Amino acid sequence: MVRRPSQRIDVTRVTGRGSDRAVQRRPDDLIVEEPLSIQLDGTRVSTTMRTPGNDHELAVGFCFTEGLLGDAAVLGVRHCSDENTPASASNVVTIDTGALAPAPTPRLGNVSSSCGWCGSEHLDELCARLDPLPDGGPIDLDVIGSIVEVVLDGQGLFASTGSVHAAAAFDASGEVLLTREDVGRHNAVDKVVGALVLGGHGLPVIPATGHGVFVSGRASIEMVQKAWAAGFSTLVAVSAPTALAVDAARRANLVLAGFVRGDAFNVYAPEHLL
Amino acid sequence: MVRRPSQRIDVTRVTGRGSDRAVQRRPDDLIVEEPLSIQLDGTRVSTTMRTPGNDHELAVGFCFTEGLLGDAAVLGVRHCSDENTPASASNVVTIDTGALAPAPTPRLGNVSSSCGWCGSEHLDELCARLDPLPDGGPIDLDVIGSIVEVVLDGQGLFASTGSVHAAAAFDASGEVLLTREDVGRHNAVDKVVGALVLGGHGLPVIPATGHGVFVSGRASIEMVQKAWAAGFSTLVAVSAPTALAVDAARRANLVLAGFVRGDAFNVYAPEHLL
Repeated sequence: MVRRPSQRIDVTRVTGRGSDRAVQRRPDDLIVEEPLSIQLDGTRVSTTMRTPGNDHELAVGFCFTEGLLGDAAVLGVRHCSDENTPASASNVVTIDTGALAPAPTPRLGNVSSSCGWCGSEHLDELCARLDPLPDGGPIDLDVIGSIVEVVLDGQGLFASTGSVHAAAAFDASGEVLLTREDVGRHNAVDKVVGALVLGGHGLPVIPATGHGVFVSGRASIEMVQKAWAAGFSTLVAVSAPTALAVDAARRANLVLAGFVRGDAFNVYAPEHLL
Repeated sequence: MVRRPSQRIDVTRVTGRGSDRAVQRRPDDLIVEEPLSIQLDGTRVSTTMRTPGNDHELAVGFCFTEGLLGDAAVLGVRHCSDENTPASASNVVTIDTGALAPAPTPRLGNVSSSCGWCGSEHLDELCARLDPLPDGGPIDLDVIGSIVEVVLDGQGLFASTGSVHAAAAFDASGEVLLTREDVGRHNAVDKVVGALVLGGHGLPVIPATGHGVFVSGRASIEMVQKAWAAGFSTLVAVSAPTALAVDAARRANLVLAGFVRGDAFNVYAPEHLL
């Protein structure tokens, strides 16, 4: 069984109220979510509910943006397979760095954290790992205002299911270089970043200075972290950022635009655009 | 410093294009996200980025819907505090069950999972923990069609920030009993369920048979899991469910409606409404 990104089922469609109500059966395409286990040098580092497709990119992008690779290079990525499961149906991806990636830090268990531990400390840790971004060139407000519409053209799964997140990489002229869709908005960004890490014709190399990344939802701290880690100069979010995401973008020297509605949007970072 | 759910900052507002472009500074209310560490009998079981407020409900709801409490009762819930941090500014919540909760299972590390491990096995594990829901009474399509609008009236943070998730508990007549907002959609549901577990005047007791829960986004497998664990009879999602969420709802005997647009919506579970 090959994992597919959407699945057609029959649903009950209800329209209108009272005596005007119509109830009918009709087919509907639903987005698929399946667990993906990501292993780094034999240790499971994450299990994420994702939409099947571009699993290698997702695994590599996750490990890269979370800082799990350290300075290690990706030597190989593969789906595991056995006598019962071909690689095309596998939900387990292994990344091999020749054991050069640092040992992952457990996130749960008996770890002490002070009572006052807060978002700004979370951000301090990020700043300790990532340097501020270099100048990415002039900010083109026309590109920011038009990118939602351009990306939408490439959202095939959204067109069929009406409900899936997208992320995209675009260049300084507003051309979309790569679009990825996933039930999880973090996964969509990880797929984009993973594609850049793995490299390919026409894709920017990391750090993606001068390029931008688009996300179809809100900009939370994790989205800023992922854009920052990949070296993008601009992050455009359809919806609003959180207060912590704005703090992070300002400290990262990342241009952060959001709340895009037609030609109107907000620029949250830099603090002073002009 | 008391943690607040939103924060006002100055942003750059851009409208129009080319010679029609206007750029102005104006204040904007942003949703706050801060990490919350949840400890169960002294062991950290989760760290979630959440919007401050109703932290006790969030911690209890998370542990309850994830099955971490087992048969144990919640004896106490408190924010930790020390000489530098009053409880009102704390981002660490401890739940005390007198050490009767089962030891949490580590999710990461050297755990084997077969290559073919998939969503249906994930669902099988859920079915092993949770019994199918009892009949919740007749399905009122007018209630499902109207609940989005009713909940929106109680979304104070959404009104001020334009970007935050909501969850709500409602009764069979469509009256909203409780609304919670959070930057994370899972957190919003956990806050609602936690409020029910902790109990309060006018709130349904768990299992919340005959009651419904509303979520402002998509219905992923986790949302169905949380509704199921709390014993709600109906889950209404503004956006679409995933294929796995529909499978889960059908097996749970949970009414699942989604993709609500005005008076029109889809019923995904039960499979045959009439």
